[in-house]
Amino acid sequence: MSTPPPTDDTVAGIRARVAAWRAAGERVGFVPTMGALHAGHLALVRTARRSAERVVVSVFVNPTQFAPTEDFSAYPRDLAGDLSKLASVEADAVFAPTTTEMYPQGFATQVSVGGPAIGLETDFRPHFFAGVATVVAKLLIAVGPDVAVFGEKDFQQFLVVRRLVADLRLPVEVVGHPIEREADGLALSSRNAYLSPEERATAPEIYAALTEAALAIRSGTDAQAALSAARGRLAASGFVVDYVELRNAEDLSPAETPPHGPLRLLAAARLGRTRLIDNIPL
Amino acid sequence: MSTPPPTDDTVAGIRARVAAWRAAGERVGFVPTMGALHAGHLALVRTARRSAERVVVSVFVNPTQFAPTEDFSAYPRDLAGDLSKLASVEADAVFAPTTTEMYPQGFATQVSVGGPAIGLETDFRPHFFAGVATVVAKLLIAVGPDVAVFGEKDFQQFLVVRRLVADLRLPVEVVGHPIEREADGLALSSRNAYLSPEERATAPEIYAALTEAALAIRSGTDAQAALSAARGRLAASGFVVDYVELRNAEDLSPAETPPHGPLRLLAAARLGRTRLIDNIPL
Repeated sequence: MSTPPPTDDTVAGIRARVAAWRAAGERVGFVPTMGALHAGHLALVRTARRSAERVVVSVFVNPTQFAPTEDFSAYPRDLAGDLSKLASVEADAVFAPTTTEMYPQGFATQVSVGGPAIGLETDFRPHFFAGVATVVAKLLIAVGPDVAVFGEKDFQQFLVVRRLVADLRLPVEVVGHPIEREADGLALSSRNAYLSPEERATAPEIYAALTEAALAIRSGTDAQAALSAARGRLAASGFVVDYVELRNAEDLSPAETPPHGPLRLLAAARLGRTRLIDNIPL
Repeated sequence: MSTPPPTDDTVAGIRARVAAWRAAGERVGFVPTMGALHAGHLALVRTARRSAERVVVSVFVNPTQFAPTEDFSAYPRDLAGDLSKLASVEADAVFAPTTTEMYPQGFATQVSVGGPAIGLETDFRPHFFAGVATVVAKLLIAVGPDVAVFGEKDFQQFLVVRRLVADLRLPVEVVGHPIEREADGLALSSRNAYLSPEERATAPEIYAALTEAALAIRSGTDAQAALSAARGRLAASGFVVDYVELRNAEDLSPAETPPHGPLRLLAAARLGRTRLIDNIPL
């Protein structure tokens, strides 16, 4: 058993720790998480380590990116388990601030992003990306890493963060990490823990439907017909479909025919009370 | 004649310059301006120098804090004159980015502040503080100073910046500098250059009316009556009054009776096509 990484719960604490590393000439990587860590998160830590001597992981369930109707209070929390997993991948420090440390009394600032944040998730979670952009900006400013790694399961979020960092000129390299999947194709997600055994058996249909649509489009099927078929397949399997869309991979603008660059197929669908998202390159 | 300070027009340029100073153990001060420098700006540079070995001054007329109907294109610009004035106070570098460097194609991020930004200027310039907060956040992130000095003529802006810096945990100390005035009391402002000789003769009435109101309130006159008298005095002098208000100096919340902390009297009024603002502590 490795020792759990040291944990800072204040900005001053993590900043001092990172400053000492930087003064010693070490590069610092950063993986922001909401905890409830799984193998996907641990893969992000390994990726961060490849370009940095030190890796900081933040664990913060950010209340401002949940709507009142969403699963903020039910979101899985297990800091002890998280620390044990992070010890296994030799994370160098954990930043686990309290809500008060992040949003003290009188807090009144919001960072919002347009561009890639328009549509898709925003159509179903209108406050989501303002919450994400504000907390990610705060975390990047607090930790001050050289490189930050984000999972591509939240592909739209990855592009929003990349836009935010470019626009504010935050001095950090943003790296995306491909989706980690279960053997049956289900994208790893902390929310998979919500699924009943029956729902868990159905959940891989999202990836299957996306893969089928991608194959069809590549073999010449009209994109709208293929997307429509994917939505139908998911609905027939018991999902309530939020969206299945084909977008430009660089900025999530609507895909043209013929495309002028790489494309991405993105989906969100609900199975019972669990909302799942997934995406694949085309 | 001193030599003009070196000028960087890119974030990479000013960042490299500041990094070299910091590596040499020097503290860095920062004074953001829109150019058209006057003695008030030069006083800010001297204040910054008192707590830093190096002082950077930015000159950037930020388009996003002007409404389409406002004076963005007419705003006075004189970089050569500004550089000469900055040489006289031995500023160490000027950051004068182009609009494209600050807002490249695809730019889609906005920083907005509530709290002290609510009311007063916002009632008359609804987009002003989102423009200010975004550009100040970008400038502070680009330059990365230890201390930044803001003039208290724009008192509400000073509090908005202080809020923004606290909320985003930007690692910079925000310092306010008292208003510099002409001998007749008029607050120094780049926009004073718009005034006709007749308007210039009338303009000191703002400070006179604020001073009179402050004296009256201190000697027991009801605050609302004193504010109303100040508005009347300005209107009688030919101003169109936007506001004359008494607020808590810490956060600009409405002043209670009796007050629970320091207060501030703030005014904005238009004289012909020129909008003037001023404020005094109570």
